[in-house]
Amino acid sequence: MIINRSQIEEMDKRYRANFINSLPGYKCLNMVGTISNDGITNLGLFNSVFHVGANPPLLGMVFRPDTPDHDTLKNINETGQYTLNNVLPEWYAQAHQTSASFPSGVSEFTPCGFTKHYIDQFKPPFVQQSTVKIGLELRECIDIALNNTKIVIGEVIHVIIDFVLLGADGYVDHIKAKTVTVAGLDSYFTANVLGRLTYAKPGEVPSLLKAG
Amino acid sequence: MIINRSQIEEMDKRYRANFINSLPGYKCLNMVGTISNDGITNLGLFNSVFHVGANPPLLGMVFRPDTPDHDTLKNINETGQYTLNNVLPEWYAQAHQTSASFPSGVSEFTPCGFTKHYIDQFKPPFVQQSTVKIGLELRECIDIALNNTKIVIGEVIHVIIDFVLLGADGYVDHIKAKTVTVAGLDSYFTANVLGRLTYAKPGEVPSLLKAG
Repeated sequence: MIINRSQIEEMDKRYRANFINSLPGYKCLNMVGTISNDGITNLGLFNSVFHVGANPPLLGMVFRPDTPDHDTLKNINETGQYTLNNVLPEWYAQAHQTSASFPSGVSEFTPCGFTKHYIDQFKPPFVQQSTVKIGLELRECIDIALNNTKIVIGEVIHVIIDFVLLGADGYVDHIKAKTVTVAGLDSYFTANVLGRLTYAKPGEVPSLLKAG
Repeated sequence: MIINRSQIEEMDKRYRANFINSLPGYKCLNMVGTISNDGITNLGLFNSVFHVGANPPLLGMVFRPDTPDHDTLKNINETGQYTLNNVLPEWYAQAHQTSASFPSGVSEFTPCGFTKHYIDQFKPPFVQQSTVKIGLELRECIDIALNNTKIVIGEVIHVIIDFVLLGADGYVDHIKAKTVTVAGLDSYFTANVLGRLTYAKPGEVPSLLKAG
């Protein structure tokens, strides 16, 4: 079955949102923690984080123009800092609940059952329950004229992680971390290892990498 | 354990690449199919596709400055078109193999065991073995001065998909599609359903959405 651009155009708005959001596959799932200059915290659920580069360590994410992302983006612009926190299966429904339209100025931490974790000389809160916590500083905010979204790029400044999750080669084990992934807007998944493969070279069949 | 920016700076290059690439969690995994104006096809593996918007339907991806992504990006600039194709467990090692440094001008399709699938009035090949095939047209290419990467944004023009994968509400079922996900540069995973949750509203506990 081929679905073409004009058929996508004719889709009902919610149908199209489900379709396009779920189309490319499983995505990074992170709760974003921020704080305003007035000291009001915010916690929001995002599924658009992507890798931009390792040196300097940069991650990107997308902000939509017409959603309650606004407190998150406003706070990032105010303090220049934000946190990314992974989601675990035991409380993924609570993480989903942070995407509800709480009034601006109301922190999602308490009503959704999350505990704030602060570190010295870094303003926004991490989520204590998360096993992989990333603190970032804003480096660039790019306006996408095509649809009035913004791409925010941040530099990784702090990582809070148990050393047992970290392989000898730097690899973060998301099976041990129990990280949840997402497809579309509302479907959550755990992962099973297929395999870790050796560096690909022409003419050689990739083989399974032994655990470091 | 807290790892800070200066410790990241001091990491060995490969260690840092593993660490930062695997840090944010599971990512979209897609093979990108392209063709040059001379008719030479290319197939490359990418883990940086992200959702930009549903209306118009836009997907973004990142191109690094110093890698064999070059044929892919060159071809996208020549024809203005490219395809995204999901990866299945039965042949994920073959998909990994498309990331090997084949000489420029050598198509990865045949040596890696993939079959080209063409549709009318669209230049680049899809991967016949994939269950979710997306055809895109280039809309914007953004230079990221921070690290000399480029973000390419494309508009979804064609989707080739079996109707059994498509829910009544537009949701694409990646469990049925057998889509593989990736963490870091080389670790592949299948997914297990945790649950699909109802639209989040303040003061209401999210519940499991019944299958459409």
